[in-house]
Amino acid sequence: MTPFIAEILGTAILILLGGGVVANVSLNKTIGQGSDWIVVTTGWALAVFAGVVVAGPYSGAHLNPAVTIGLAIAGLFPWEDAPTYIAGEFLGAMLGATLVYVMYKNHFDETEDGGAKRAVFCTAPAIPDTFRNVISEVIGTFVLLITVFYFADASFETETGTTTKVGLGALGAIPVAFIVWAIGLSLGGTTGYAINPARDLGPRIMHAILPIKGKIDSNWGYAWVPVVAPLIGAALAALVFLTLGK
Amino acid sequence: MTPFIAEILGTAILILLGGGVVANVSLNKTIGQGSDWIVVTTGWALAVFAGVVVAGPYSGAHLNPAVTIGLAIAGLFPWEDAPTYIAGEFLGAMLGATLVYVMYKNHFDETEDGGAKRAVFCTAPAIPDTFRNVISEVIGTFVLLITVFYFADASFETETGTTTKVGLGALGAIPVAFIVWAIGLSLGGTTGYAINPARDLGPRIMHAILPIKGKIDSNWGYAWVPVVAPLIGAALAALVFLTLGK
Amino acid sequence: MTPFIAEILGTAILILLGGGVVANVSLNKTIGQGSDWIVVTTGWALAVFAGVVVAGPYSGAHLNPAVTIGLAIAGLFPWEDAPTYIAGEFLGAMLGATLVYVMYKNHFDETEDGGAKRAVFCTAPAIPDTFRNVISEVIGTFVLLITVFYFADASFETETGTTTKVGLGALGAIPVAFIVWAIGLSLGGTTGYAINPARDLGPRIMHAILPIKGKIDSNWGYAWVPVVAPLIGAALAALVFLTLGK
Amino acid sequence: MTPFIAEILGTAILILLGGGVVANVSLNKTIGQGSDWIVVTTGWALAVFAGVVVAGPYSGAHLNPAVTIGLAIAGLFPWEDAPTYIAGEFLGAMLGATLVYVMYKNHFDETEDGGAKRAVFCTAPAIPDTFRNVISEVIGTFVLLITVFYFADASFETETGTTTKVGLGALGAIPVAFIVWAIGLSLGGTTGYAINPARDLGPRIMHAILPIKGKIDSNWGYAWVPVVAPLIGAALAALVFLTLGK
Repeated sequence: MTPFIAEILGTAILILLGGGVVANVSLNKTIGQGSDWIVVTTGWALAVFAGVVVAGPYSGAHLNPAVTIGLAIAGLFPWEDAPTYIAGEFLGAMLGATLVYVMYKNHFDETEDGGAKRAVFCTAPAIPDTFRNVISEVIGTFVLLITVFYFADASFETETGTTTKVGLGALGAIPVAFIVWAIGLSLGGTTGYAINPARDLGPRIMHAILPIKGKIDSNWGYAWVPVVAPLIGAALAALVFLTLGK
Repeated sequence: MTPFIAEILGTAILILLGGGVVANVSLNKTIGQGSDWIVVTTGWALAVFAGVVVAGPYSGAHLNPAVTIGLAIAGLFPWEDAPTYIAGEFLGAMLGATLVYVMYKNHFDETEDGGAKRAVFCTAPAIPDTFRNVISEVIGTFVLLITVFYFADASFETETGTTTKVGLGALGAIPVAFIVWAIGLSLGGTTGYAINPARDLGPRIMHAILPIKGKIDSNWGYAWVPVVAPLIGAALAALVFLTLGK
Repeated sequence: MTPFIAEILGTAILILLGGGVVANVSLNKTIGQGSDWIVVTTGWALAVFAGVVVAGPYSGAHLNPAVTIGLAIAGLFPWEDAPTYIAGEFLGAMLGATLVYVMYKNHFDETEDGGAKRAVFCTAPAIPDTFRNVISEVIGTFVLLITVFYFADASFETETGTTTKVGLGALGAIPVAFIVWAIGLSLGGTTGYAINPARDLGPRIMHAILPIKGKIDSNWGYAWVPVVAPLIGAALAALVFLTLGK
Repeated sequence: MTPFIAEILGTAILILLGGGVVANVSLNKTIGQGSDWIVVTTGWALAVFAGVVVAGPYSGAHLNPAVTIGLAIAGLFPWEDAPTYIAGEFLGAMLGATLVYVMYKNHFDETEDGGAKRAVFCTAPAIPDTFRNVISEVIGTFVLLITVFYFADASFETETGTTTKVGLGALGAIPVAFIVWAIGLSLGGTTGYAINPARDLGPRIMHAILPIKGKIDSNWGYAWVPVVAPLIGAALAALVFLTLGK
């Protein structure tokens, strides 16, 4: 699997599961309708887990342009590969959002509330306020990236004194899932923690394109916030990382 | 323990715990009655964990004909062993469902709602629609299988350059449990994520056979969906896996 | 630390945290009052995790006479050490229950419901029925023991073909915690999953002894069930294990 | 990164995420408003996870003066480094609390209840009672420290008989997060589990300083309890550890 395909597949799984849990909680007549915030945040965390499990060995599983660009700023990822990765992330996000729609179509049809339907695709601020909303997404993405930068590898030292790195396989996807879980629970209360331009803009485009019954506008006025702010957060985290060193 | 016995034992534990959590949440006078969707999905995820812990070392812990057939299509499991595995899975599922009934008998008796009683055994669509219900189970099973295909082993490289695989023991059952958790939270809202022919049909047969007080019909008209659709999903995942390679 | 001390300390932590979560959910004016079943079951699971982390390296962290006796029947633990272990488990359980009372004293005083107060110490059946209640505790404990018997160690094979066992440290306490989580979510709905004679009888004795304001009787008529039934479940699991082999 | 910086950064992440989850659950118009106790406790547990992931390799990730002093009493940490660590912990806590305010500012403004606003910063007892509140924080911190003392490393024995320690990387932060999860669920019902002088006093100072609209007093009369009691609990745990040995 090429990194490009891995980013598409991993991000599609991420958005299918992430959008799916919002659909399950928000749309009418679903089995999980009205569930607690723990359901939404655990769903998104495990969506990351699933996407990383699949894409990890092939692309490093960025699944997020803010991760791609943050790593590139930090000198941990070649800039020339960034466009391919980002393209894959957006394509995957659009594919995943489409699958959510295909799967929950009847429940979209049964739901009056256009805001609930749009929330399956993209985030919206609890209190619209450009400055604070940007800050919110900057902080959330900063936490994601700073922890990613400092993830330590499993390892042991051999009798000859060499440090041997241990790959933990699928278990190695747990830390980033737990970080996203944390961000959702704690920092998701203001703008719904997009913290990922592809996660927000890709599905928003599909919300605009797909023939969703009774849909409202795609809130394009807000669309730049969850694209630009995560990139700022990622850049800040990279600068802190470059300043403090590893 | 032979693989046949391991599949019976593992699937029985899976269905005892999986059906058990639905009984606990749905039936009258239970201690967990009316609990949130997080309880149901965590219960099923950990049911998978427990079943895989027990059966893993002896059969690879398929516990699911869709897994058995998906692996066989992908060339990762010998077709000639599939009938034995699938028989074990169905026997285990029927045994597990019976144990749930034995354990929660008084609560079945105290429950009027025949739909709630049947839900302990088998899935039903939130909105009956054959085409969409099939799609829903196809997508759910596809996610299960595609992640299973791409699970990476833990490993390290020795000083002589050999890659040494590390078995993670009981912790190795966590990734598949987390994937099932994810599927339940995110994709369980439409058809209740059977994603396993044995998990659905085995208990449905027991629902028909057992002398459950005040039971309703076993919804045989729907019974083929959670059998056929998971197999389609598994086959699709196998084809994607064969196309993309590892 | 001797195994005796380890069993006392580990079981005290188990019951302090396990009884504590029930106190937090059931008693008046606590911060967690009225929380969902997910809180109770996660609390007990992590109580096991904490107890096993502490006692594991010194006693193997049985923390449960049913585990001690089940392992002895299976030939995995010397019978002559069982009395010491069981004494430690009961002492620890009584100590832990006392600490819960000391900590939540004001909330006990603020609670009218004698049943809620007793529930902090010991289990009670949702529907009293000796036969079914015994079955319920037998099945719950059977699941606990059968998985414990089949937990696999982490390991790798060296270049010379030797299998090297890897100790996973504190992470190694996760599988048993997850199993107890599963049992609570799925099989706790009938009798409250004592699955441990010391966990139930030790605190019940303290309920009788401690000067709890407005307490009701300690339900001695039921007290033998969560003692005897877990031992039957453990014995059954040991017999299955001896029959099937490892 | 120096240990001082690591303690600042790790504690800032801890308090940003920990205070954040309380803000999300308690303040008006947040997306997670009114969520269950499982959200608060999982949020704090994962806040510890995130802080430990970042600071662990550089300072050992105390993030808590009670940990620093407990380890020093137990002879596991040099007393002369304690002031630097503790200073870092308080600075980090104040920084994290400020970030929560910056992020949730509009929601603070929308919230009438001064107690809810203060709860984002510091703990308060459900039932004020100095003696019992001290006991509560002593017990909670004792459980934290005693488990920290007895965390076992992952390791294996080589063919020449040497024990080789395995660092588990980011996964190694899970056990302490699970312990804090346990303490929150089970022992958080009385005083809100400060169990950390910096976690409580640092943000309380910021509550007093920051221009929070409609804030109430910072409850200075209680402020010494979550500072002194955790230190007592840590000292007790260290004494038990020194008595029992490892």
